[in-house]
Amino acid sequence: MVVSTCKIRVRYAETDQMGYCYYGNYPAFLEMGRVEALRELGIRYRDLEEKGVMLPVSSLEIKYKIPIRYDEQITVETRISKLPEGTRIPFSYKIFNENGDLATIAEVILVSASVATGRPQAMPKEILNALKSYFL
Amino acid sequence: MVVSTCKIRVRYAETDQMGYCYYGNYPAFLEMGRVEALRELGIRYRDLEEKGVMLPVSSLEIKYKIPIRYDEQITVETRISKLPEGTRIPFSYKIFNENGDLATIAEVILVSASVATGRPQAMPKEILNALKSYFL
Amino acid sequence: MVVSTCKIRVRYAETDQMGYCYYGNYPAFLEMGRVEALRELGIRYRDLEEKGVMLPVSSLEIKYKIPIRYDEQITVETRISKLPEGTRIPFSYKIFNENGDLATIAEVILVSASVATGRPQAMPKEILNALKSYFL
Amino acid sequence: MVVSTCKIRVRYAETDQMGYCYYGNYPAFLEMGRVEALRELGIRYRDLEEKGVMLPVSSLEIKYKIPIRYDEQITVETRISKLPEGTRIPFSYKIFNENGDLATIAEVILVSASVATGRPQAMPKEILNALKSYFL
Repeated sequence: MVVSTCKIRVRYAETDQMGYCYYGNYPAFLEMGRVEALRELGIRYRDLEEKGVMLPVSSLEIKYKIPIRYDEQITVETRISKLPEGTRIPFSYKIFNENGDLATIAEVILVSASVATGRPQAMPKEILNALKSYFL
Repeated sequence: MVVSTCKIRVRYAETDQMGYCYYGNYPAFLEMGRVEALRELGIRYRDLEEKGVMLPVSSLEIKYKIPIRYDEQITVETRISKLPEGTRIPFSYKIFNENGDLATIAEVILVSASVATGRPQAMPKEILNALKSYFL
Repeated sequence: MVVSTCKIRVRYAETDQMGYCYYGNYPAFLEMGRVEALRELGIRYRDLEEKGVMLPVSSLEIKYKIPIRYDEQITVETRISKLPEGTRIPFSYKIFNENGDLATIAEVILVSASVATGRPQAMPKEILNALKSYFL
Repeated sequence: MVVSTCKIRVRYAETDQMGYCYYGNYPAFLEMGRVEALRELGIRYRDLEEKGVMLPVSSLEIKYKIPIRYDEQITVETRISKLPEGTRIPFSYKIFNENGDLATIAEVILVSASVATGRPQAMPKEILNALKSYFL
């Protein structure tokens, strides 16, 4: 299992008039979490795209348990808990607020696809190889 | 059952470097869909907040089936298919692309809460009354 | 002179915890204004990019006079008051709030550039031709 | 003179289909720059708002010289080069790209205002006092 954490400070831009972080800003936090998880595995997502592979999102689930607020430094914990199946790779997330409370739970599935055609294609070997040692 | 549709043109701001509408922009589209659905029921969300009730999001699920692109005029179909249960009200969505293909499916659950305290409170009577005639 | 207006309803996503439309959301409104102005001239920006020309922003100026708020239907008035000079085309804007008050003034300069190389290139003939009849 | 720098990694969410960071995302970077500059002066913006003072933006100017791209770690240099005049405080910015090139220049003027009424009010003493030692 791969676990990676990254810290993000909630921007004023991300608040809404309830005084909460707007619910539509969480997907960007999840994106940052998985990009950092891949970076820790030695994979820069930008290099993948330059080689012609992109990883668009196939599905997203978020449970908002505790609102997060302006200027809080949240912790996004990103987990890859199983090997990719075919062209899909699942990420699961916990977001903790500044007090360490579990504020949000989420799941995202990415699909490996060709930049040129947009069509699904085999998961890049860099990713499979990097993950293997974690799932012996 | 309540069904409402609204049309939204995808902004350049909403694209990403894949050339798609970024996955994190869909929650704003869903928000617009439900605000318009409520407006058709005679309820302005801004009035609810002025009266002290807000409807933060409790959960979100999106399945991205076909990418949508810059300048497409999408149709967001918002459906309230059952009466609120306690403090919760569920919305289900279909987003159709410019060709009329089903591009996205989504579910959102809102919670009725007090603006003053942030705590859950009874669903506003305006909403219950407006919905009743649709669920005889 | 070319003048075009478009109406935009402020989304909840665009509010911040001051209860105002966040200042960083205005550039997207300006983008929508100029895309609609070009559309009225018979030019779809998306077609320009497909033909290999893009119009990135070179400079932006905004004066925020009156805050705009959630659910207001604002009017963006976009004006092309002179012909492009070389590779640059200037747009000037007025944004009116729901009461018709002048809320915001802005200026944007776009540069014509090649999608392939990112380098400046001659303003597309479609644009020059479409504008000519307005500047006799 | 007060100079503060902060580093920001450009998110995928912030790209557009030109493959650049969308021009409308820069205001959020500028906001982060000035919030960190104030933090270095010992002032947390969130505390100001809790005490009833907010600092909405009065004007914004940006010159986009070199596009910045996905995953670049940019450096936002924020400068307060003179004391506030009345209710206004000016910030000037330079954004450097990952190679250290000057990519963007910007100016923002904030106004001190009451959270309760939205009306201009005297610049908070915390800010004036914190700045004084820099402008002897």
